[in-house]
Amino acid sequence: MATVIKNGTVVTADLTYKADVKIEGGVIVEIGPNLSGTETLDATGCYIMPGGIDPHVHLEMPFMGTYSADDFESGTRAGLAGGTTMVVDFCLPGPDQSLLDALQMWDNKTSRANADYSFHMAITGWNERVFDEMKTIVQDKGINTFKHFMAYKGALMVNDDEMFASFQRCAELGALPMVHAENGDVVASMTAKLLAEGNNGPEGHAYSRPPEVEGEATNRAIMLADMAGVPLYVVHTSCEQAHEAIRRARQKGMRVYGEPLIQHLTLDESEYFNKDWDHAARRVMSPPFRNKQHQDSLWAGLQSGSLSVVATDHCAFTSEQKRFGVGNFAKIPNGTGGLEDRMPMLWTYGVATGRLTMNEFVAVTSTNIAKILNIYPKKGAVLVGADADLVVWDPKRSKTISAKTQQSSIDYNVFEGKQVTGLPRYTLTRGHVAIEETTVRTQEGHGQFVKREPFTAVNKALSTWKELVAPRKVERTGIPATGV
Amino acid sequence: MATVIKNGTVVTADLTYKADVKIEGGVIVEIGPNLSGTETLDATGCYIMPGGIDPHVHLEMPFMGTYSADDFESGTRAGLAGGTTMVVDFCLPGPDQSLLDALQMWDNKTSRANADYSFHMAITGWNERVFDEMKTIVQDKGINTFKHFMAYKGALMVNDDEMFASFQRCAELGALPMVHAENGDVVASMTAKLLAEGNNGPEGHAYSRPPEVEGEATNRAIMLADMAGVPLYVVHTSCEQAHEAIRRARQKGMRVYGEPLIQHLTLDESEYFNKDWDHAARRVMSPPFRNKQHQDSLWAGLQSGSLSVVATDHCAFTSEQKRFGVGNFAKIPNGTGGLEDRMPMLWTYGVATGRLTMNEFVAVTSTNIAKILNIYPKKGAVLVGADADLVVWDPKRSKTISAKTQQSSIDYNVFEGKQVTGLPRYTLTRGHVAIEETTVRTQEGHGQFVKREPFTAVNKALSTWKELVAPRKVERTGIPATGV
Amino acid sequence: MATVIKNGTVVTADLTYKADVKIEGGVIVEIGPNLSGTETLDATGCYIMPGGIDPHVHLEMPFMGTYSADDFESGTRAGLAGGTTMVVDFCLPGPDQSLLDALQMWDNKTSRANADYSFHMAITGWNERVFDEMKTIVQDKGINTFKHFMAYKGALMVNDDEMFASFQRCAELGALPMVHAENGDVVASMTAKLLAEGNNGPEGHAYSRPPEVEGEATNRAIMLADMAGVPLYVVHTSCEQAHEAIRRARQKGMRVYGEPLIQHLTLDESEYFNKDWDHAARRVMSPPFRNKQHQDSLWAGLQSGSLSVVATDHCAFTSEQKRFGVGNFAKIPNGTGGLEDRMPMLWTYGVATGRLTMNEFVAVTSTNIAKILNIYPKKGAVLVGADADLVVWDPKRSKTISAKTQQSSIDYNVFEGKQVTGLPRYTLTRGHVAIEETTVRTQEGHGQFVKREPFTAVNKALSTWKELVAPRKVERTGIPATGV
Amino acid sequence: MATVIKNGTVVTADLTYKADVKIEGGVIVEIGPNLSGTETLDATGCYIMPGGIDPHVHLEMPFMGTYSADDFESGTRAGLAGGTTMVVDFCLPGPDQSLLDALQMWDNKTSRANADYSFHMAITGWNERVFDEMKTIVQDKGINTFKHFMAYKGALMVNDDEMFASFQRCAELGALPMVHAENGDVVASMTAKLLAEGNNGPEGHAYSRPPEVEGEATNRAIMLADMAGVPLYVVHTSCEQAHEAIRRARQKGMRVYGEPLIQHLTLDESEYFNKDWDHAARRVMSPPFRNKQHQDSLWAGLQSGSLSVVATDHCAFTSEQKRFGVGNFAKIPNGTGGLEDRMPMLWTYGVATGRLTMNEFVAVTSTNIAKILNIYPKKGAVLVGADADLVVWDPKRSKTISAKTQQSSIDYNVFEGKQVTGLPRYTLTRGHVAIEETTVRTQEGHGQFVKREPFTAVNKALSTWKELVAPRKVERTGIPATGV
Ligand SMILES: [Zn+2]
Ligand SMILES: [Zn+2]
Ligand SMILES: [Zn+2]
Ligand SMILES: [Zn+2]
Ligand SMILES: [Zn+2]
Ligand SMILES: [Zn+2]
Ligand SMILES: [Zn+2]
Ligand SMILES: [Zn+2]
Repeated sequence: MATVIKNGTVVTADLTYKADVKIEGGVIVEIGPNLSGTETLDATGCYIMPGGIDPHVHLEMPFMGTYSADDFESGTRAGLAGGTTMVVDFCLPGPDQSLLDALQMWDNKTSRANADYSFHMAITGWNERVFDEMKTIVQDKGINTFKHFMAYKGALMVNDDEMFASFQRCAELGALPMVHAENGDVVASMTAKLLAEGNNGPEGHAYSRPPEVEGEATNRAIMLADMAGVPLYVVHTSCEQAHEAIRRARQKGMRVYGEPLIQHLTLDESEYFNKDWDHAARRVMSPPFRNKQHQDSLWAGLQSGSLSVVATDHCAFTSEQKRFGVGNFAKIPNGTGGLEDRMPMLWTYGVATGRLTMNEFVAVTSTNIAKILNIYPKKGAVLVGADADLVVWDPKRSKTISAKTQQSSIDYNVFEGKQVTGLPRYTLTRGHVAIEETTVRTQEGHGQFVKREPFTAVNKALSTWKELVAPRKVERTGIPATGV
Repeated sequence: MATVIKNGTVVTADLTYKADVKIEGGVIVEIGPNLSGTETLDATGCYIMPGGIDPHVHLEMPFMGTYSADDFESGTRAGLAGGTTMVVDFCLPGPDQSLLDALQMWDNKTSRANADYSFHMAITGWNERVFDEMKTIVQDKGINTFKHFMAYKGALMVNDDEMFASFQRCAELGALPMVHAENGDVVASMTAKLLAEGNNGPEGHAYSRPPEVEGEATNRAIMLADMAGVPLYVVHTSCEQAHEAIRRARQKGMRVYGEPLIQHLTLDESEYFNKDWDHAARRVMSPPFRNKQHQDSLWAGLQSGSLSVVATDHCAFTSEQKRFGVGNFAKIPNGTGGLEDRMPMLWTYGVATGRLTMNEFVAVTSTNIAKILNIYPKKGAVLVGADADLVVWDPKRSKTISAKTQQSSIDYNVFEGKQVTGLPRYTLTRGHVAIEETTVRTQEGHGQFVKREPFTAVNKALSTWKELVAPRKVERTGIPATGV
Repeated sequence: MATVIKNGTVVTADLTYKADVKIEGGVIVEIGPNLSGTETLDATGCYIMPGGIDPHVHLEMPFMGTYSADDFESGTRAGLAGGTTMVVDFCLPGPDQSLLDALQMWDNKTSRANADYSFHMAITGWNERVFDEMKTIVQDKGINTFKHFMAYKGALMVNDDEMFASFQRCAELGALPMVHAENGDVVASMTAKLLAEGNNGPEGHAYSRPPEVEGEATNRAIMLADMAGVPLYVVHTSCEQAHEAIRRARQKGMRVYGEPLIQHLTLDESEYFNKDWDHAARRVMSPPFRNKQHQDSLWAGLQSGSLSVVATDHCAFTSEQKRFGVGNFAKIPNGTGGLEDRMPMLWTYGVATGRLTMNEFVAVTSTNIAKILNIYPKKGAVLVGADADLVVWDPKRSKTISAKTQQSSIDYNVFEGKQVTGLPRYTLTRGHVAIEETTVRTQEGHGQFVKREPFTAVNKALSTWKELVAPRKVERTGIPATGV
Repeated sequence: MATVIKNGTVVTADLTYKADVKIEGGVIVEIGPNLSGTETLDATGCYIMPGGIDPHVHLEMPFMGTYSADDFESGTRAGLAGGTTMVVDFCLPGPDQSLLDALQMWDNKTSRANADYSFHMAITGWNERVFDEMKTIVQDKGINTFKHFMAYKGALMVNDDEMFASFQRCAELGALPMVHAENGDVVASMTAKLLAEGNNGPEGHAYSRPPEVEGEATNRAIMLADMAGVPLYVVHTSCEQAHEAIRRARQKGMRVYGEPLIQHLTLDESEYFNKDWDHAARRVMSPPFRNKQHQDSLWAGLQSGSLSVVATDHCAFTSEQKRFGVGNFAKIPNGTGGLEDRMPMLWTYGVATGRLTMNEFVAVTSTNIAKILNIYPKKGAVLVGADADLVVWDPKRSKTISAKTQQSSIDYNVFEGKQVTGLPRYTLTRGHVAIEETTVRTQEGHGQFVKREPFTAVNKALSTWKELVAPRKVERTGIPATGV
């Protein structure tokens, strides 16, 4: 049984051309004119693009005795509804927990996933077991990325020593370190100061972590990665300061990737000054929304290639959960939704405005991260042999974003009221048509774990270069030169 | 009759995989395992890559009553010997010459071309005929790029007014303006000053056009393109100052491409201080070679994507021709060779050192420029349907570059003595095996003109954006507000 | 007869201390405790500072058959009322006019000046007479600065060739070139385009010359000055782009000064969108007002020293004169007032906010430009022997700026309605108390021309350095090395 | 009894003029023509300048059971011999030592000082006693600067938390935090790695702390200071990376000062590759010498004002002491001399080359730091009432630097063999002529402690600004807006 997508225009990160796409067994088997199959999807007026990959989500994430509201079922369903066919979640080991145990716990959550997924492993402490388990994680578990939190002091945060050790280990294993870049010491101290001064509303969250605090941590992580001789991926780059650090590194030839979120591209700090506490608290995430100048910086980064990937950091908490933080912004669970809206929002604010070409849209929503994660062209491509994770994109379809009609489990949407034009007609996950416009046909458990190999071409090239310029000992015959 | 390249690894700008490649009628007809055909090329241990595209050559260029020594025959032969399967030359209309007449003259030179070619059209003056002919050039002649010389005062140079008019015309036509960016007024003035001071040796050429002079012109061209609402391509970016201007523009989201030459990446200004006049004069080109810091900047640009394409500005003059300038560096014909050596030099100094991945090598030697020139994937790709312009690259083959063994007509080589590892085993031009290691089997007249359509995705996106942010008139009811 | 300022605190560019100041014969004769004289001025609660120097004014400037409304009488009176004790005007030779003739014409306007003044000489064309007269201007006429207009095409504008020649001449003469930095070709072309599109209101003026256009010209002038080996002074630096070019130059050790205007520091582009044509037209000046980000950039430049001087470009036209441009913004006379308001506005928005220290206030309103113009410590200082150009500054005095109460001849004020705190209690011009709070006691004709010597320490140092790094000829014995 | 310096030219940070200078009771009592006194010093052909202030020395510094070889006697003698009339040393409390106790210990070393001195207090840990004692140090002990070591892990190093607490305390007290900026974690880790690899020679010291490591720490300290609302002084800025961080901060209006050392301005990393272990080890200091590009950056910083002060970090260890580190570079005591050579070296390489004017020379060797430390114009000035710490500088006097003729106690000189032109004819410390060319007439115990008041104008201005832009709480009436 074969599915054929007919009459559309294939749009990839580097090509735009008319062709039909034939799918069998969950993979693309043919691309060309006049194909036929048992099932036909009409793509007239549409673009056939690689399904989106969201490399930054937190589904069913444990938090203060509860969990983030979207799990792998509702999360992947929301993603598919918006054209995203794969997510990468973060496995977060507890204090002294084995990485392998944690991975097992995380894996247990995925049984109802509607789309494919993978994991980044977080390094939340450092000891010999972690050092050893990293090898197993990479070589046996198919995970080639390690996340480091430079904030969340007393919880997930690691210090420079730990990060540097882990980055060096990543270099050996051919893995890619990632960082949440905010100076956790300063955030903690500022938080205490603001609370002490009675500045306890949601806007205090933003005050506690201004752009300079993110810029500093980004800059620091880059230096550590450079000294360790490993590429670096900076998650949720939200501001010019962090972007500047990334640009400055890249301009020296360093291999650093930045990931702006769709939220930071389109929403700004004024949200926190809303008189409605709930409105403001629902937007509390780290880093917080910034002003328009920072938005301009992020868009320009996507245009010029200094930023590589648009993600969401989808971590949805209900209004009720958010209200844990009434009277103390530090207790507001950090996170917003976005999985369902990332692609329509980016298309509307990026492609329709002329900031991005369609090909760049594909690159930053799918292909670039597939390459970075070393799963290209299985994912992120429209090529024979690739997984049929596809979105048939209707550039004319329109809607107004609303919590009322969303797939996510939560009771609000930070993009509420935004008019988007450009939506999926169909979303396919390994050939299965999970979405047909507003009709949801997801299959619980259809989603599979995607293994990822280490040692990308970039890792290897960087190691070669670092070996070439490594310190060389000066040979001397005695002290002084003539001998002591 | 089909040719199959077997046992190799296909390497493109974004993929590396084992596959055979089958060619019929000059195009790729199949890519996959276990292919067979009438002719088999063994690619064991080799990479099958898109043939190189050199977008910056001057073959049989008229100069002071003579011509640059390599014509379309020897030039394309040299290119093929080094893995380059397409060149783009510059059509240079004389004073008041019709663009169409000039194009005819340039076309006449190509009858013996061994590989495919195209033209950039130079705008060397401005009037209504030029304005009108630009449309014909784009719409009928298949040329979507216009070159502007900001130097060569009294000859090819255009002023800001002319450039701005031409850039605006390019925006309308969906074409891409290019610039040779040096401040021609300053170069002319400095040249006169140096000669007056007796500084007449080849090193005076370098003194007359230091990096700041190139940086200024680059910066100016970028502003003009931005105001005109059109992308810009800066040829032969040789220094940090020009690169900085490009980076600064890109960081604002401007669409600017920079093209370093293999010479500037690997040779430095010390060549001009050679005590041998001939040695120094043979390296005279514009911009001149720079110091090591500038080289580092250019390499980093290729790594980070702020520079897009590696070219040669191949414009070979014999030692005898160079000696026109004895006693007056301003009369030394500007130009060096490079067509044959670009790819082996870039591989050796770029890929083997770990500065670039193989995929990045393909991108900067072929794929990027194919996209910029809007001939992708006909050129620059290993895809079914693409022209079989391919190089089977043997990463182990080695040689020492020498004028004695080169294809170029001239009597020296600026890379003389450089050891390169990484050379073509085969080079194919539209399926014809023109090169098999050291054996040359080029066919005179095999090369064809490659037409290029205007309105790339980037042009269109930029126009959309510029329209969106265009000045809006303030509606007023009188003067003053209450009416005069 | 001696005047003593008692009970105040002397504030200079680098000192703050309690002292009385005694004045005789127009100069400071003693500074110290317990001084006495025939006249006493009480400075209790006040700061005794060097009088302001406004290095950028156009008094009685010829324009389209009329003149800018403030002449040397009303202009210097306005300056004194605001604490400014010296102005520097621009002598603008007509087409082919002798510099010396023009200077004579400008000198004729000054007979009623109430405060001291000097001139910058404009270079509005280039020929041998200009070359020769520059020497006379510097050596006999006491003028060490030459202004170059990169805009006003067809009128004052000079091209790169002319500027470069003039800059080199300045280097020889030890003079300082100045530039009005906007790309005149682009401004002219944009102006025509906007008018053709019906965009003829005052906002069109701003649209015709966006920041990139100023940044480009600034960058170009800097390169020309660097190649000529002479320092550069950029007048009315209004935007980040121009400031960035200045910073970038300075960061390479180049000697470049930037001069923001008080208007650009405190007013923004929204003024041009006012529905009242008069309101908008009264703000038409070049460069136009910019947005808040540009303001932030300018303030930071004053804080860090990358910008050196705050001026006004005072060139006041009445509303009636402004209305020449109804229906065609290009005919609106360019210029606004500011002489009277510069110091109170800068104090209020700079010192009272903590952006600047009091010492920095003195530096950027007086001392820095006195040094640049080589008239320090005669002007710009509170030192024995210095001219008694002083302002007794009352940091508590407040007023609301209004055209109704101003000294300037025009019928409006661009700062109308701004509340300022910090105003002169007394302003003294060479010892004469011209202002006592709101009482004006200026003396027509009291003002004298201030001669300025060339070859500042900075000019000399730069010349030394440029000689040290000048191109050196490579000595060769033959061609080739072995002889031809 | 009065001393008069006759026939010289006074050169200060902003003035150059002919005058005699009369001294009585250790202070300047008169400046003017034709002065007379009981003692006359002939300054014919010389410049009378403020004596140098070296704000960064370590005299008799405890180290591994021994002490740095120059104490307050030989150190101040060396300084005077080179025109430096004041030094500022660092008081380094031991683990858990009281700041006050440590200060007492340091004070005890000064009894034989030949010139005036002051102390910076180091914060080497954090607790409530430190918090409290900082107030005493500032308010009672006359010390307004606190040093923080971001390197020397396990010894002097403080972490971000401690630094941030201390910086905030400095803000309250009106004090100035200083940092030694290198990432101590990375240095420690790299050191262990290099030693493990057998890279144990002096060059390993440089390898262990490359420019990126310094740049990172500088950047981090700047962010911490910005968040704390306090200016920052970065000691021994040695490289472009650190300088870039400083420039970037200043360009945002932050109040950050950078201090290059004369060693980093004139010596480079090639010293560490010397085949003579002693030669290399004698140059071991932190940060290490860098390459020529970094030197260029530092010089440009002095020219443009992005760097403020030239110091020495004088911390002299004998060759014997240096040899503690044979076989392990980490045990080589860090430090070089420089006190005697700073001014002649800077004059020779800075003023004589045209990089700096004479006035800038005075600024960066004396006046700037006097202002930063709030001891201007007592120190750093040639003004009536100022301390007669003066140098009569003979721009024609020449010598070749050599350990054989130096005042310092150690057996070598890192500037050995450098030819300098520009040396003191006389050096006066509070009126006492301590140096007359090569004759040393220092008086042991003549030197006095110089008290320094907190709350400079810059501190106050910054506090005002930070208060103005401080976070403001959003007032809300309930949750949600309508009440819960
Ligand atoms: Zn995060
Ligand atoms: Zn996250
Ligand atoms: Zn060229
Ligand atoms: Zn060319
Ligand atoms: Zn102007
Ligand atoms: Zn003006
Ligand atoms: Zn230190
Ligand atoms: Zn130190």
